[in-house]
Parts: sequence; C-alpha cells; structure tokens
Amino acid sequence: MLTVLDFVGTFVFAASGALRGVQHRLDLLGVAVVAVATGVGGGLVRDVLLGATPPAALVDERYLVVCLAGAALAAAAAATLVRLRPAVQLADAVGLGVFAAMGAAKGAAFGLGPLGVILMGGLTATGGGVIRDVLVLEVPSVLRHDLYATAALAGGAVYAGGAALGIASEVGLGAAAAVATGLRLLAMWRGLRLPRPAGVS
Amino acid sequence: MLTVLDFVGTFVFAASGALRGVQHRLDLLGVAVVAVATGVGGGLVRDVLLGATPPAALVDERYLVVCLAGAALAAAAAATLVRLRPAVQLADAVGLGVFAAMGAAKGAAFGLGPLGVILMGGLTATGGGVIRDVLVLEVPSVLRHDLYATAALAGGAVYAGGAALGIASEVGLGAAAAVATGLRLLAMWRGLRLPRPAGVS
Amino acid sequence: MLTVLDFVGTFVFAASGALRGVQHRLDLLGVAVVAVATGVGGGLVRDVLLGATPPAALVDERYLVVCLAGAALAAAAAATLVRLRPAVQLADAVGLGVFAAMGAAKGAAFGLGPLGVILMGGLTATGGGVIRDVLVLEVPSVLRHDLYATAALAGGAVYAGGAALGIASEVGLGAAAAVATGLRLLAMWRGLRLPRPAGVS
Repeated sequence: MLTVLDFVGTFVFAASGALRGVQHRLDLLGVAVVAVATGVGGGLVRDVLLGATPPAALVDERYLVVCLAGAALAAAAAATLVRLRPAVQLADAVGLGVFAAMGAAKGAAFGLGPLGVILMGGLTATGGGVIRDVLVLEVPSVLRHDLYATAALAGGAVYAGGAALGIASEVGLGAAAAVATGLRLLAMWRGLRLPRPAGVS
Repeated sequence: MLTVLDFVGTFVFAASGALRGVQHRLDLLGVAVVAVATGVGGGLVRDVLLGATPPAALVDERYLVVCLAGAALAAAAAATLVRLRPAVQLADAVGLGVFAAMGAAKGAAFGLGPLGVILMGGLTATGGGVIRDVLVLEVPSVLRHDLYATAALAGGAVYAGGAALGIASEVGLGAAAAVATGLRLLAMWRGLRLPRPAGVS
Repeated sequence: MLTVLDFVGTFVFAASGALRGVQHRLDLLGVAVVAVATGVGGGLVRDVLLGATPPAALVDERYLVVCLAGAALAAAAAATLVRLRPAVQLADAVGLGVFAAMGAAKGAAFGLGPLGVILMGGLTATGGGVIRDVLVLEVPSVLRHDLYATAALAGGAVYAGGAALGIASEVGLGAAAAVATGLRLLAMWRGLRLPRPAGVS
C-alpha cells in the first residue's frame, strides 16, 4: 500500500515540477530534469545523508520511469493541469504525507534520534520542491508556505513519537502519513499560516 | 587516454566557470571557488550519490590543481578567452563527452540499471555547470540549452546500450564520448534545439 | 574546549541564518529551516563528501537543538541582534575559525591530501552560509566577501601544514582556528579585500 502511494507521490511531485518547468518556458529536457529532481530529489538527499547509497531512486528504476511519466503528462496537458489545480493539490498533499512518513521511518531505521527522524521526514517530503525552486530561481516555497513543511515535520514527529512508544512501524507509518496529509489539507482549507517574526530592516 | 581527457575536461570546465566568475565581478577567491565547483562538481555529486566517498576529485589532488590552473588562466586572460569563444566551446564539447562517458561507466560499475547509468552520465557532465549557475544566480543553462544535457544523456545511453549488449567497457567509453561530443558540436553548428511544451501562464 | 566552541559556532551560525530569514520575511518554520541549514550545513556537506554518514550533526541531536535555540533567539530578538552587529560578527569569526579547524582535521583523518584538507576546512566553515544565501536567493556572500572564505582556507592550510610537519593534532587545531579567526578579524578591522580580476563584459 505505502509502496504504491510512494510511486503515486513521486508521480505527483514529478508532474508538479514539470509543470513549473513548462511555466518557466524550459525545453523538453529541462522539463524532464525538473520533474526528476522534484520527484526523487527529497529521497536522494535523505539517502545520501543516511549513507544509503546508491539511493533507492537510482537502484529501483521504476522511480525514474514514474518521474518521466509525470513529466510527459505535464508537458502534454499543462493547461488542463492548471485548470484542475484543486485535484493536483489534493494529490500533492497525499504525496507529502507518504514521503514524510517514509522518510521518518528510514531515518529511524538508520538509528537517528527523534529530532533527526523528524528532520528526515521533512526533508524527504520537501527536498525535491526546494531543489525545483532553486533550479528555476524562486525562493523555495516551503520557506514561505502555509503549513507545508510544517505538516511534513508534524508527520515525522508522529512517527518519532510512535517509535519512542514502541508502536509498530506500519501503524506509525500510516499515522504519520495521515497526520501530515490531513494537516496540509486542513491548512489549505482554512488558510492556516504560521506567524512571522517581527520584521527588521 | 581517457584519463588525460578527463583532466582536459576538468581544466576546460574550471576555466569556463572561472570566466563566469570574472564576468560576475567576483574576487580572486570567488573565481577559484566557482572554478573548482564547475570543474569537479559533477563528479562530486556522482560519487556522493554512488557512495564512492571520499570522491575521486578529493582523493586525487591533481583534480584540484587542474581546477586552480584553469582559474588562473581565466583570471589572467579573461578577455582573450572571450575572444576565443569557438575554441573554448569546442574544448567544452570534448569535456562534455568525456565526463558523460566516465560518469555512465562509473554508474554501471556500481550496479545501476540503464536509466541510472544514463542519468549518471548526464549528471557528471552537467552537474558542475548547474552548481556554477546556481552560485551566480542564473537559471541553469542546461535547462534551456541547445542540446547540451541532451548530448550528455545520449552519450550515457550509448554506454548503457553497449553494456547491455556486452560490448567491452573501453569501446563503450569511446563511443559514448564520441556521440556526446559529436551531438553537441552538431547542435552548435546547426543550431539544433529541443522543442518546448506549449506554454501556460 | 573545541567541542564547546563547536556548539558556540553552530549557535552563532544558526542565529545569523535565522536573522537573514527574518529579514526576508519568512515564517517561523522558514526561519528555523534557514537556521538549521546555516548552522549544520557546512558540516553536513563535509561529512557527506567524506562518507562519514549519517553526519555528526544528525547523530548527535545537540547540534539540532543548538540550531533551534539560535533560531529562537533571532526570532525573538532580531532588532537587538541587528544593533549588536559588531558582537555578532566577532562571534561569527570565532565560529569560522573553529569550523575551519575541525573541518580540516576531519578531512585529514579521512586520508585526504593537503589540498583536500584545506578545501574541507573552507567548506565546513562556509558551506552553511552558501546554502543560506542560495535558499534566500542571494549570490553567496563568501564569493564576494572581504577575506571570509579566504580566512577559512588559511586556517585549513595551517592545519594541513602542521599535519605535514608531524605536529600534534590538538596544536594544529588550535593554531588553525586562531589563524582563521584572527585573519577574519584583521580583515574586518582593516577592510582588507582580495583583488578582483580585470572585468570582461
């Protein structure tokens, strides 16, 4: 189930990256590069940090195939995707939850403490988007976004808490994904935002 | 032969990076940093992803020496290099081919499948340029360029295809480098470009 | 002693990163992300390059706690920190020296040659700042700065020279940190800068 959702998340993230590439007027290859970077970038960074090399996304070629499929969809149907924005955002929230849960679980499996586990959850879920934004020269939206990375970190915290309480990994994975996805959807629905510190010039 | 070409490629890439640093009015150290990042950045990313650490470019100090030599040349003779642009671009195409071939071969040696091998070829050849562009805040030119990364990926595909057919690694290396360099030169000569997907706002 | 200073450096770097985040009007989470990236980013890049994974900053959770404390300070007292700029810069110079010394020592411990050791010193001390600047879309200040990365590299060179002469590691660490911090303070005090190569258009 989670493996299937992992591919779904990769596909959605890749398509969203490709769409951004189309909007930035990149050529077909540039679109594919941004799609791959967005789809598997978070997992690559996580695996490199954990020393799990070569990363899963390079060893299992289905991840790259899924990214290219996402890129093809976005290149062929960019205008339609823009119109279906609510559905795309829903799928993106599911991907966020799955990636946060799996990143946290992998961090725990490599012996990290609770803060490291939470960070791996957040990094896996948002790393691809950060790479995407840096490549097209935008300030990473996760640094500004309405409870996007926060939702991923909350999912990681749920997993870390469950692991500390001795809860079975599968239960923790499901709960972490549900909390991250749910919090993200709630934030979108209610327009929740984190406060900003008082500004300085 | 390929080892010599590898140093040539590193030198050319480093000099091109340094030249960009000079054009951005960086000081001598900034120019050296961009030169090193451009010259060995692609190989560093490849080796980190494969788990081949410390990377070859740090273990064999000649790579860093070659990068600094490239930086010195660019700092001392920036105006001349700008005037010799066709020769610089020819050398850059050779570097592109060598890096693509060696990156693909290393990916295959670490057990990646065909898509991973192709990706390692493209990443090794273009990764340094991407880091260079991000450092000086330009949208990476490989995302826009006329068959630049595409040529590197084509070289990687030649190597991956040869490996699948059981062709000797040296032959595959030479063919991959020749195809990538040749395709890049052809693209420059004929002004070939990939199409862009239909734009969306 | 150096371990304590390492935490001090991490705290100062994290606070400086967080302050930049506040100035860029990021929300609380964005501020925390930039703080963590600035505080431990250089060490993460160093450890990933050396293959020392998972990196020290993820295994020892105190680093992340220190980063979050730096972020909290900057978020709560941004205006005060801006007013205390000389003190912040002094602390930053100490952090630069400690990070350069410890990065060089770790590079030497992993068998790198002198150039690699120097590079690890520079990368550890400045890598976090580069990530911070790229995240908020500024040209990395180390590429422009008055003897900032240069001071870090000089510290690395002192350590590499000491190691070549067979000097005890603790002495080399102290000397490297002192030289890097001293050179940085001298550069600030006297307004020293590296020359820029003659420009080209």
